[in-house]
Amino acid sequence: MNAPLKFEAATATVDQAAIEPFPNSRKVYIEGSRPDIRVPMREISQSPTPDSFGGEPNPPLFVYDTSGPYTDPAASIDVRRGLNTPRLPWILERGDTEELPGPTSDYGKARLADPALAALRFELQRTPRRAKPGRNVTQMHYARQGIITPEMEFIALRENLRRKEYLASLVDSGPMGARVASLLGRQHPGQSFGASIPLEITPGFVREEVARGRAIIPANINHPEIEPMIIGRNFLVKINANIGNSAVTSSIGEEVEKMTWAIRWGADNVMDLSTGKHIHETREWIIRNSPVPIGTVPIYQALEKVGGKAEELTWDIYRDTLIEQAEQGVDYFTIHAGVRLAYVPMTAKRLTGIVSRGGSIMAKWCLAHHRESFLYTHFEEICEIMKAYDVSFSLGDGLRPGSIYDANDEAQLAELKTLGELTQIAWKHDVQTMIEGPGHVPLHLIKENMDLQLEQCSEAPFYTLGPLTTDIAPGYDHITSGIGAATIGWYGTAMLCYVTPKEHLGLPDKQDVKDGIITYKIAAHAADLAKGHPGAQLRDNALSKARFEFRWEDQFNLGLDPDKARAFHDETLPKDSAKVAHFCSMCGPHFCSMKITQEVREYAAASGVGEETALRQGMQEKAIEFVRGGAKLYREV
Amino acid sequence: MNAPLKFEAATATVDQAAIEPFPNSRKVYIEGSRPDIRVPMREISQSPTPDSFGGEPNPPLFVYDTSGPYTDPAASIDVRRGLNTPRLPWILERGDTEELPGPTSDYGKARLADPALAALRFELQRTPRRAKPGRNVTQMHYARQGIITPEMEFIALRENLRRKEYLASLVDSGPMGARVASLLGRQHPGQSFGASIPLEITPGFVREEVARGRAIIPANINHPEIEPMIIGRNFLVKINANIGNSAVTSSIGEEVEKMTWAIRWGADNVMDLSTGKHIHETREWIIRNSPVPIGTVPIYQALEKVGGKAEELTWDIYRDTLIEQAEQGVDYFTIHAGVRLAYVPMTAKRLTGIVSRGGSIMAKWCLAHHRESFLYTHFEEICEIMKAYDVSFSLGDGLRPGSIYDANDEAQLAELKTLGELTQIAWKHDVQTMIEGPGHVPLHLIKENMDLQLEQCSEAPFYTLGPLTTDIAPGYDHITSGIGAATIGWYGTAMLCYVTPKEHLGLPDKQDVKDGIITYKIAAHAADLAKGHPGAQLRDNALSKARFEFRWEDQFNLGLDPDKARAFHDETLPKDSAKVAHFCSMCGPHFCSMKITQEVREYAAASGVGEETALRQGMQEKAIEFVRGGAKLYREV
Repeated sequence: MNAPLKFEAATATVDQAAIEPFPNSRKVYIEGSRPDIRVPMREISQSPTPDSFGGEPNPPLFVYDTSGPYTDPAASIDVRRGLNTPRLPWILERGDTEELPGPTSDYGKARLADPALAALRFELQRTPRRAKPGRNVTQMHYARQGIITPEMEFIALRENLRRKEYLASLVDSGPMGARVASLLGRQHPGQSFGASIPLEITPGFVREEVARGRAIIPANINHPEIEPMIIGRNFLVKINANIGNSAVTSSIGEEVEKMTWAIRWGADNVMDLSTGKHIHETREWIIRNSPVPIGTVPIYQALEKVGGKAEELTWDIYRDTLIEQAEQGVDYFTIHAGVRLAYVPMTAKRLTGIVSRGGSIMAKWCLAHHRESFLYTHFEEICEIMKAYDVSFSLGDGLRPGSIYDANDEAQLAELKTLGELTQIAWKHDVQTMIEGPGHVPLHLIKENMDLQLEQCSEAPFYTLGPLTTDIAPGYDHITSGIGAATIGWYGTAMLCYVTPKEHLGLPDKQDVKDGIITYKIAAHAADLAKGHPGAQLRDNALSKARFEFRWEDQFNLGLDPDKARAFHDETLPKDSAKVAHFCSMCGPHFCSMKITQEVREYAAASGVGEETALRQGMQEKAIEFVRGGAKLYREV
Repeated sequence: MNAPLKFEAATATVDQAAIEPFPNSRKVYIEGSRPDIRVPMREISQSPTPDSFGGEPNPPLFVYDTSGPYTDPAASIDVRRGLNTPRLPWILERGDTEELPGPTSDYGKARLADPALAALRFELQRTPRRAKPGRNVTQMHYARQGIITPEMEFIALRENLRRKEYLASLVDSGPMGARVASLLGRQHPGQSFGASIPLEITPGFVREEVARGRAIIPANINHPEIEPMIIGRNFLVKINANIGNSAVTSSIGEEVEKMTWAIRWGADNVMDLSTGKHIHETREWIIRNSPVPIGTVPIYQALEKVGGKAEELTWDIYRDTLIEQAEQGVDYFTIHAGVRLAYVPMTAKRLTGIVSRGGSIMAKWCLAHHRESFLYTHFEEICEIMKAYDVSFSLGDGLRPGSIYDANDEAQLAELKTLGELTQIAWKHDVQTMIEGPGHVPLHLIKENMDLQLEQCSEAPFYTLGPLTTDIAPGYDHITSGIGAATIGWYGTAMLCYVTPKEHLGLPDKQDVKDGIITYKIAAHAADLAKGHPGAQLRDNALSKARFEFRWEDQFNLGLDPDKARAFHDETLPKDSAKVAHFCSMCGPHFCSMKITQEVREYAAASGVGEETALRQGMQEKAIEFVRGGAKLYREV
């Protein structure tokens, strides 16, 4: 058992590994309609194609960047002060919130007043905000009023990833530019199972999707540090990373490190699942330093407050916990309101019972009192709290299957139906809502999950844990579940909750967090490609071109993990000269299929056997047409 | 660049890591209709369920075992002598082969006569065999004559994995046995896309599948060391591991180590893709020590023989190479006979041209001579060689896509059609044949590959490399491709060729080999579950039951990699007592969803809310019915 590391607020520092620049990369900001809309992206520079392959320049590619100010060399990072608050002016100018004198929850007040916590406490220099009486401050509410918020505009720019500008830069890159643009800009038409992703995301489209509940923007008014993002099946598939200490191990400092490490590698959201001591203080540190939305499961903390005895939970304690966390800035709450009394006995015939912690707590409460869950009976009151801070629902799947055996069973599907009914209530209050999904599901039963969810929850975004497609590989559940995640993402899941290699065995350390994230970035991207998300293939095309042209550094840098790619390459061929060599370690210098292919092309062109010349001409015409026609080639069948 | 390790035949030893026993496991042999049919399995013992969960015994589970004699403590292993030859009597008693005075290939003779190679050479004590003139010694030929060979019976026993006996042992395990059997024996009906897997594999079924070409048994008469296995979509999905040195790195000893390491973790087949010096000698060492079939790509060696100049290849050199390797005992040859002259220009419009080494060699030859490929024009002569030794075809996809961009393009599909035509020719000669497939394919285009292959190649087994579902993760291509492999395995691919994390970057070391194998075991098993392979879920059920009951050691041991599962667990909770604790590191001792679930069950049973008692009774009746009815519960909808 690891001894918890000592954490002291006064000496807390940022993890150096989180602020390293990515190789050949530059943080850029795209300005929106007003100067305070500054959308971050990572620009990856590339070297020109070697002369032997054509010699053309390769303009930089832009990729989605979740790492926040940590990778901005111009930003000064001090975890004791927290991040800047770019959203604050937007929240203030809406004029529908008020500053509170301090926390209004009993627990929040008590923690603030406890001198014993001073050494651990994050020194927040402001007090929480709340909606003015009678006002609703959710992004869904604004969307339904026809208002396009700065958050929505931010998201539109972010989702487009400067694709049009990138394609134009290819065309303008030289005499072969049009050909290159045609090659690199093309992608396979997808199979989207009813998703309808436009060629370009507009702020108006973001508003429409949020208004109809098909997407959510997790953005608590008390989390002004975030760079807004969206979760919905007509947008890029997102991933969530779980962190959190437990009663057994881990400290505040470690959890902040895991968060900054997670967003470096691409976590779009982070959930703090801490269950140990100092949950409140840990959460404050994480939120104040997080540029991505933070989710929690409030029942975990409520349970701590009653000494771990589920039957002693009350609505009042739970309600106070919601307010406590909402005033800290939690962006979405997992709430297991679908675990109804009547569903609990359905789990008795399972192989692995109830494996969701929240689900088992509520099941125990229901049985102990022989009453309907207080989360279910107080659901409208919960909505009132959510809309006063714009906390989004993540309706928890407390009865998700914990084994292949239990997949898609009666208990799971009964709960899903209830989650659909609760979605309608949440929407009546304009509260943003997503739905959590399994779990453990064999490949061929995944689609049923997605189809039922879309139908019963009226297309509210689906947010699934994996699913794991087999139970037999403890130690590799990032992979058993990455397979399921890619599949369900393709079918329409909007956000994939990662699973790390430590699942079922222990708490993830930083290496596990990274392995989980990269696996889920792969799954999300495989899903985007399969759905035919416009432009998803640009990065694949650029990387494959670099690979084919032996631009080793570009191949590493365009990948999800340049460090590992470089290290793997160097294990076999460590010399720097090997990185410009026109061969690789698989075949050696005298025998290289890529080299032979190039010779085939040249031979074909020279001998008149090939059609490459004609082909290049044809593609050039097509490419010009394509850029003039507004990038429609994406959709070519 | 690693300096090649010195290898000396006289001092070669087995890798100690390959002969370690698996924890709580025992090598057992199931005897067939004659005492020399001894089918290996690994029996995994389990501890009883803790009294608090019911106290029932948990009979041992049997899993497929590819590790050969290496994990048999009774076997004495000496890599210098090679393995025993259990198949030799079966080959001899058929009376259709003859012992040759020595190698008949020019190259084989020359290598044997070269005194400079003495220090490297494996000292084989026997000479090669070949079919008597006019005889055909393929398993397909026997199958079509209605003969059930010992190899076929061996395979039938192997594929069934003692499932019936395991289920009976559950029923007999005590008063709750019938309930446990019902629970652990049940599985989801699959979605098989036209596969038709019987509840029990009989020797007759094996014969039928081989006769109609829907499955192959790679089993060269000169590889009597193997434990026969089958590749076909109505059997368990298999995996192949590639090893092999290159001109740049690696030695004979390392390659033998990679082979024994690969089969330890579950490689059903191994391909030796060596391209460096001493290909011939390396191969001999691998085959003599391999209990699994070995595949090669003979064109690699043929190319070495002409100094790497593809245009200097001739049919005679290639033919001599086929005979050389067939007489060593290679079980299947990748032959890129589908790369026809007319298809080569189709690749000029690709993003990544021809990435198959074999494909690019043949493309270059075709263009250099402006002639049809000699592999295509001499295909019937190749068949004559194959059937004299029972080497199976693995018809190579020389034009497979090397990027998402190039997936399912004209060149690839033209070649596939030709492979279908060649399959008919091979079958005319009763030569066993499988078909290689891509490569890089986005998720939604995978099914088209499978459907076209089944149709155009008349259900000959498909053998795919991945496919990789995105290009953007160098360093993680075991995962990008594991997703595709699980998917195409579900659709019907019979064998999945692994991809390691080093793909595109370097040569795999032992850790990469293991990572690739475990990933592919996961993919193959996820596919078996999704297809509804009878009994595939037994292992998942047993492991999940162990997990639910906090039988930590059993959870580790039932998994694909007990070492890693145990190490991960111990990182967080290293004490031995933690392995019998009824909690885990994720939640700690006071807060455990599995514990709470158990309480829910007890509460439900005690208070009459639950239906568990009635349920258990019901299940008990069902279970007895099930075992009496011949394990039909598998198929329950």
